[in-house]
Amino acid sequence: MTEAIDLAPDVKRADCPSRGVLEHVTSRWGVLVLIALLERSYRFSELRREVGGVSEKMLAQTLQTLERDGFVDRDAKPVIPPRVDYSLTSLGCEAAEQVGVLACWTERRTPRVLAAREDYDQARRDS
Amino acid sequence: MTEAIDLAPDVKRADCPSRGVLEHVTSRWGVLVLIALLERSYRFSELRREVGGVSEKMLAQTLQTLERDGFVDRDAKPVIPPRVDYSLTSLGCEAAEQVGVLACWTERRTPRVLAAREDYDQARRDS
Repeated sequence: MTEAIDLAPDVKRADCPSRGVLEHVTSRWGVLVLIALLERSYRFSELRREVGGVSEKMLAQTLQTLERDGFVDRDAKPVIPPRVDYSLTSLGCEAAEQVGVLACWTERRTPRVLAAREDYDQARRDS
Repeated sequence: MTEAIDLAPDVKRADCPSRGVLEHVTSRWGVLVLIALLERSYRFSELRREVGGVSEKMLAQTLQTLERDGFVDRDAKPVIPPRVDYSLTSLGCEAAEQVGVLACWTERRTPRVLAAREDYDQARRDS
């Protein structure tokens, strides 16, 4: 553990704490929650509609992980019925911007990836 | 399916093909393989040593997925003993650069995340 702290952080090392942080930021639902919150704050049920396919359980887990990491702020308003808003902290905003750039790139490049897959599958069929 | 093609790509939609591409680029081992290959090409066993903690099976699966997506080039040299080199394609290089920026950011910000986790856990213990 001392060794891990003394060395420069390196996500490629299994024992480096940064590895776990990167796994949260790039987790299946973490990525999409960060991107959604980049636009504005959301209530839980709104966010669940925005992030297509996420279950209630996975969204709750993802939000809790991101909150614990200091990326997401959970604001429970003392009203009836209860209202909870989720938004990005400044640290979360930095993460979300990076992830957002990657998502935009992916959306733009998806046609090339789909074409590459077709070529790959065709070559396998031919061989 | 027609609908998914007609709409603008959006990773937040469960039926958008870009969702699956993003999942490959941000997969647990995909991220680290892309980052490693950003430095240079690797043979399988070298790459396995470089990406700490990856199993032979997961590395093979990850490389195959990235190759099929057009991100990684697999070069099997006709020599004895067999030699296979993995490197990034130009598309893979673009992906890896994005992911590399995110990884650097994560490495830099990990101390803040660790501090946030301590605050979170402390607040839970106190309440």
